[in-house]
Amino acid sequence: MLSAMNHCILIALAVSTLPVVAQEVHPDRTVTFTHTAPNAREVSVSGDFGKRGEMTKGEGGVWSVTLGPFEPNIHSYNFSVDGKQVADPLNNRSKPQRSGISNVFEVRDQAPSIWDRQPVPHGVVHLHEYDSKSVGTTRRLRVYTPPGYEADDQRFPVLYLFHGSGDNEATWTDFGRAHVILDNLIASGKAKPMLIVMPDGHTMPPVPRDSPKAAEVRNKNLGSFEADLLSDVMPMIDKLYRTRAERESRAIIGLSMGGNQSLIIGLNHPDLFAWVGGMSSAVREPDTQLAPFFKDIAAANERLKLLWIACGKDDFLIQENQKLDAMLTEKQVKHTYIESAGAHAWPVWRRYLAEFAPLLFQ
Amino acid sequence: MLSAMNHCILIALAVSTLPVVAQEVHPDRTVTFTHTAPNAREVSVSGDFGKRGEMTKGEGGVWSVTLGPFEPNIHSYNFSVDGKQVADPLNNRSKPQRSGISNVFEVRDQAPSIWDRQPVPHGVVHLHEYDSKSVGTTRRLRVYTPPGYEADDQRFPVLYLFHGSGDNEATWTDFGRAHVILDNLIASGKAKPMLIVMPDGHTMPPVPRDSPKAAEVRNKNLGSFEADLLSDVMPMIDKLYRTRAERESRAIIGLSMGGNQSLIIGLNHPDLFAWVGGMSSAVREPDTQLAPFFKDIAAANERLKLLWIACGKDDFLIQENQKLDAMLTEKQVKHTYIESAGAHAWPVWRRYLAEFAPLLFQ
Repeated sequence: MLSAMNHCILIALAVSTLPVVAQEVHPDRTVTFTHTAPNAREVSVSGDFGKRGEMTKGEGGVWSVTLGPFEPNIHSYNFSVDGKQVADPLNNRSKPQRSGISNVFEVRDQAPSIWDRQPVPHGVVHLHEYDSKSVGTTRRLRVYTPPGYEADDQRFPVLYLFHGSGDNEATWTDFGRAHVILDNLIASGKAKPMLIVMPDGHTMPPVPRDSPKAAEVRNKNLGSFEADLLSDVMPMIDKLYRTRAERESRAIIGLSMGGNQSLIIGLNHPDLFAWVGGMSSAVREPDTQLAPFFKDIAAANERLKLLWIACGKDDFLIQENQKLDAMLTEKQVKHTYIESAGAHAWPVWRRYLAEFAPLLFQ
Repeated sequence: MLSAMNHCILIALAVSTLPVVAQEVHPDRTVTFTHTAPNAREVSVSGDFGKRGEMTKGEGGVWSVTLGPFEPNIHSYNFSVDGKQVADPLNNRSKPQRSGISNVFEVRDQAPSIWDRQPVPHGVVHLHEYDSKSVGTTRRLRVYTPPGYEADDQRFPVLYLFHGSGDNEATWTDFGRAHVILDNLIASGKAKPMLIVMPDGHTMPPVPRDSPKAAEVRNKNLGSFEADLLSDVMPMIDKLYRTRAERESRAIIGLSMGGNQSLIIGLNHPDLFAWVGGMSSAVREPDTQLAPFFKDIAAANERLKLLWIACGKDDFLIQENQKLDAMLTEKQVKHTYIESAGAHAWPVWRRYLAEFAPLLFQ
């Protein structure tokens, strides 16, 4: 069905007004990046593929480098020109981010991947803006309803799905393709039809990572995000949508910052969530933050349908996740721990969602 | 409520990794654009504000120009470097387009504008992908439901709202702010609660405007878009949403290419639409394309609740719209014709939607 053309995709070439491609995906899945900056002293490309590619200056001030091979997946990148992060001015595909700029390129496999749109029934993504009483601001969230949701009176289980600190409420759909992944899993019978709720994981204005206030803001954010989720978001979702509003029909997972949020909130509220996960989670103080959960491990083991923790071997958070696994094992908490290939990047998280969703509500 | 700070907004300064702003909005509503291109021979900025600003090279190869004053509104722009269109690599706000790249800047008024988010109840935007039987492809559309839609069993009238040839199904919400405009109009009691359906106006792959096939593709597109709307989109909407599925509760309007679509489809189907409009419409052959409508003008005058046509005085399509107005007047078709300030640009179309929507379903 897919021709050899799919092996050599020219990106950002949609119209004749854009005659120069910024990156070219070769048949061997290496990618050549180019960027024009005649007077720059240093140009590099980096992205969620985890390595910085120093670029070499060529004719006409065009810098280039060939990297890879990349795994067939959807990747993001940006350029650094003399230390300043810039977007690719020739690529009109960008990744929704909380701040900064990243562009997008795709490396396709011969067969369609689980995140590729396929000729199957499609669900609907709903964009909400709501006045959060607990946070005191207008906030955004997205809801995926599965194919056929409108057609019958059935009630559906709900997966609460959180993004990372660099993302916003649009990233799991527009870049992560959560809705496409679920469409495909549901069509093949691998996942139960479910709703996905994707809130905005940030309740506070951004502070730089190296700010002395970063830890304080992080903790405050965790608390107010939890308050927003439990007292604003979940009641709203159970009111607006035909959900199965009980613990056995609620799952919670997130990535990075969102993985910490999902583990802490999910495990400390066994009355609300029976299926809990964390992807490449930024778990910083599990012993104190999970204290309520650790109080009665026997009860937790009985009530939890699944505790699923995964991290890439090349992830900068691998040690934190290994420690969490060891702590859970030592305390005899039933859980699944997976060390996969990959770094702290969306290609890994797309795969994790495709692994986690089929385990739910079975 | 808004402080003096709102008069001087620095765009694209979200994070410390982006220390240089690409455009600065001054208190007098002029805007300084800058772009780094040391070896370029010619750099200019253009946008939907209708003029090209030649930029002057300064220190460090930074080109700049100050344009305006701009009307308080949301504007788009891009740079041309030696004839090549490029995005602003320092601005992470972009306009959804069919092709090409444009970035976005805002000039704010002292009071909130009708397209600014205000503390009022918000509706929901729904992203659909559907398999169009008439077109034979998977297509996208967006639906706005008004605040409170989920809460009761009321049925609502529907406005079908079409974009221009350079846009896609996301442009009316993400850049045009149709949902925000309706939230505000409904909250103030100026517009009736209604659904808005925003389909993708293109059914065929893009061809350059100067292609010998452009006219043929345009006509084919009009036909297949009409088929898709009437036999796929409208039945789907009336099935999935609680609509009032009768002519008195259906309006249709579009801009540019979409204005031609809305006028031709709307006027030729008086059994389906009682409220018809066109914004800056690309009406090319109204005499032939509206022949079915012109067959029985007395009946049309009786059945049409509103025929509303508007165009900016500086629009390149002003003559076509004047001719249409003259033709309708000569044929004694009841209609409203408005010549407003402005060119062929989104600031005009936001204002038109805010004028048109309050007239509907009254």
